[in-house]
Amino acid sequence: MARNAFYAQSGGVTAVINATAAGVIETARKHRKHIGKVLAGRNGILGALHEDLIDTSKESPAAIRALKHTPGGAFGSARYKLKKFDQDPREYERLIEVFRAHDIGYFFFNGGNDSADTCLKVSQLAGKLGYPLTAVHVPKTVDNDLPITDNCPGFGSVAKYVAVSMMEAGLDVESMAKTSTKVFILEVMGRHAGWITAATALAQTVPGTAPHVLLLPEIAFDEAAFLARVKEAVERYGYCAVGVSEGLHDKDGKFLAESGLKDAFGHSQLGGVAPRIAELVRGKLGYKHHWAVADYLQRSARHIASRTDLEQSYAVGKAAVELAVKGMNSVMPTIVRLSSRPYRWKIGVAKLADVANVEKKMPRDFITPDGFHITQKCRNYLAPLIAGEAYPPYENGLPRYVRLKNAAVRKKTKPQ
Amino acid sequence: MARNAFYAQSGGVTAVINATAAGVIETARKHRKHIGKVLAGRNGILGALHEDLIDTSKESPAAIRALKHTPGGAFGSARYKLKKFDQDPREYERLIEVFRAHDIGYFFFNGGNDSADTCLKVSQLAGKLGYPLTAVHVPKTVDNDLPITDNCPGFGSVAKYVAVSMMEAGLDVESMAKTSTKVFILEVMGRHAGWITAATALAQTVPGTAPHVLLLPEIAFDEAAFLARVKEAVERYGYCAVGVSEGLHDKDGKFLAESGLKDAFGHSQLGGVAPRIAELVRGKLGYKHHWAVADYLQRSARHIASRTDLEQSYAVGKAAVELAVKGMNSVMPTIVRLSSRPYRWKIGVAKLADVANVEKKMPRDFITPDGFHITQKCRNYLAPLIAGEAYPPYENGLPRYVRLKNAAVRKKTKPQ
Repeated sequence: MARNAFYAQSGGVTAVINATAAGVIETARKHRKHIGKVLAGRNGILGALHEDLIDTSKESPAAIRALKHTPGGAFGSARYKLKKFDQDPREYERLIEVFRAHDIGYFFFNGGNDSADTCLKVSQLAGKLGYPLTAVHVPKTVDNDLPITDNCPGFGSVAKYVAVSMMEAGLDVESMAKTSTKVFILEVMGRHAGWITAATALAQTVPGTAPHVLLLPEIAFDEAAFLARVKEAVERYGYCAVGVSEGLHDKDGKFLAESGLKDAFGHSQLGGVAPRIAELVRGKLGYKHHWAVADYLQRSARHIASRTDLEQSYAVGKAAVELAVKGMNSVMPTIVRLSSRPYRWKIGVAKLADVANVEKKMPRDFITPDGFHITQKCRNYLAPLIAGEAYPPYENGLPRYVRLKNAAVRKKTKPQ
Repeated sequence: MARNAFYAQSGGVTAVINATAAGVIETARKHRKHIGKVLAGRNGILGALHEDLIDTSKESPAAIRALKHTPGGAFGSARYKLKKFDQDPREYERLIEVFRAHDIGYFFFNGGNDSADTCLKVSQLAGKLGYPLTAVHVPKTVDNDLPITDNCPGFGSVAKYVAVSMMEAGLDVESMAKTSTKVFILEVMGRHAGWITAATALAQTVPGTAPHVLLLPEIAFDEAAFLARVKEAVERYGYCAVGVSEGLHDKDGKFLAESGLKDAFGHSQLGGVAPRIAELVRGKLGYKHHWAVADYLQRSARHIASRTDLEQSYAVGKAAVELAVKGMNSVMPTIVRLSSRPYRWKIGVAKLADVANVEKKMPRDFITPDGFHITQKCRNYLAPLIAGEAYPPYENGLPRYVRLKNAAVRKKTKPQ
């Protein structure tokens, strides 16, 4: 007997998370024997808690196909941490109640570390309550910090965006440096792990070009050493381009860009390390500077998505459904690297218990001994992930991104 | 008798200024009867002052062709204002000395308002000194603020970049707004003229989507009215996306980016109008925010250049040479709009005296009465300028941008 599936997007969205959604929905539609409808959570897990479900069966094949080229989260995502299970299991119980009301037999949760943990707990509770549920976490995070999987869907596209942007801005600064800006600073995402910052270094295909210095969150900020490196680059190459992580911190762990706000998970909201670094450079070295903060532009830039990332993002969605119909529970499809040159990969599988709440930072041997750049080993790892282009269709000069109907499913439980 | 040409890039570079260089060089190569070599100034006009000339005849046809897809300034540009001619004509006289030494009969100066003025003065001095010189200014500025020409080469590509970026970031914020960021602010260039800020509004192809509010430099910032608009958008659409000009100022003409606001920790906010607006929104409305400063990314983004802009940038370079060989002096090729729908344009010509030092701001009827958005008339003007894509070639996931040999010409004058 076919049962319905629940799919939800969780945490920060990416340029290609909708490609994963397309992978889930298109593959589910091919498994009618096991899966009835795919119901999506409006605004992620909140859609389950509030029984605000979207009937994706109302969407045409063309609309679902168009998700592959549409950034953002087509059903809405959420930064929402369920209450601690041990202290208050009611939210988890509510999820099962809604699942039961809509005969949800499959739970596909598309997110990063936190959501892997949520997915695991939902699966465990279902088992405890005797509710039959197959829970599969579908990986997604621009931060590239999930363990086991070689890389994370969403990362390759942000990596490509920051590498291309650094290359382009580098050419700009290089051509102006004689009389104008000498130091350019690009701030990118990646709070605890420096993967995105590292990816800016892929721009450096010619020695001596941008970026000259990386400021990674894995390396405590050393002001004097940094300023010496900037001075050296300006004197040697005429200019200095810097890639800096929003999560840069000093040796005491204090973020350079602490803004004082915290998000729903208790994480500090960061922003604005670039202007602080710029001010430092001007104050101590007197160089004219410019700085950019890419912020959401980097993770929504579907127009310059990596084809490799797009294919992997779709593949994990497809694999999640295939694992589920085989009865694999509490697992996550992973990306397994078979070789770097030529780049070959396949889909693997990890147990959720091994994934949840583990954060993968840059290995030390991916960073040069001085801490200011990446090694060849890191370059070999990163390079294939940005390979290939996958342009969206355009109309009147703008990408033709899809908007789904997102028709609501009739509620069956008492509102909470 | 053929004489040599001097070509220099001036001021801030763009994603397509090298396409103009390609237009000049390729067209000059077709007029061997009139034009010998094209010598480029290394670092713009400094190359002439220092007799630091580049022999573009050493570059292959393929390399020159590749300029069409390469951002930045291939020969180096300069922010350098010659001393006032009336007070100290020596720099101008030096230019003529170098031109004379290298038999420069054609002067192609590729820049914005300031360089149009320089070009005119060089032309006038040459006449006074009896030195035969045909001077043609070739328009370029992302600010789109040159008069007479319907639009400026370089603008269409930055307009496309900011429109696409706003559309993509808007989808991101929209999908997260229920539990996370409610206000997103994108800061763009255009210190005195709001053309780039206006172009972010092209992203709004669906009513109620990003951007909801524009902050233009033509409209004095009204804090209360702005905050009311943000609140209205958040309450109505769930989120608010704002496009703001770096040149936003208050009714006394004071730039907001210089206003000396402090953040929650008492640190001075360092440059950037976006973080100041963000802080204001948080302080007065309490909304969670994110902000981005595109800075050089927007003007170097050849990967998302407008095909229309690319074609026009090439065309003004080509036309400059054609005007010059016809003996037209002290002129600038312009872009003349023949119709908006369908978009048709041709090359025209303006006298430099009518162009120099005139700044074209947004007409008031391009801005809605409340000052916070653009009118349909403005949309009709802007829309064709971002039409069409023109992707660079890629290799290993990155654009294959060209680096010229930039071989130096042997010096013939005494160093100054």
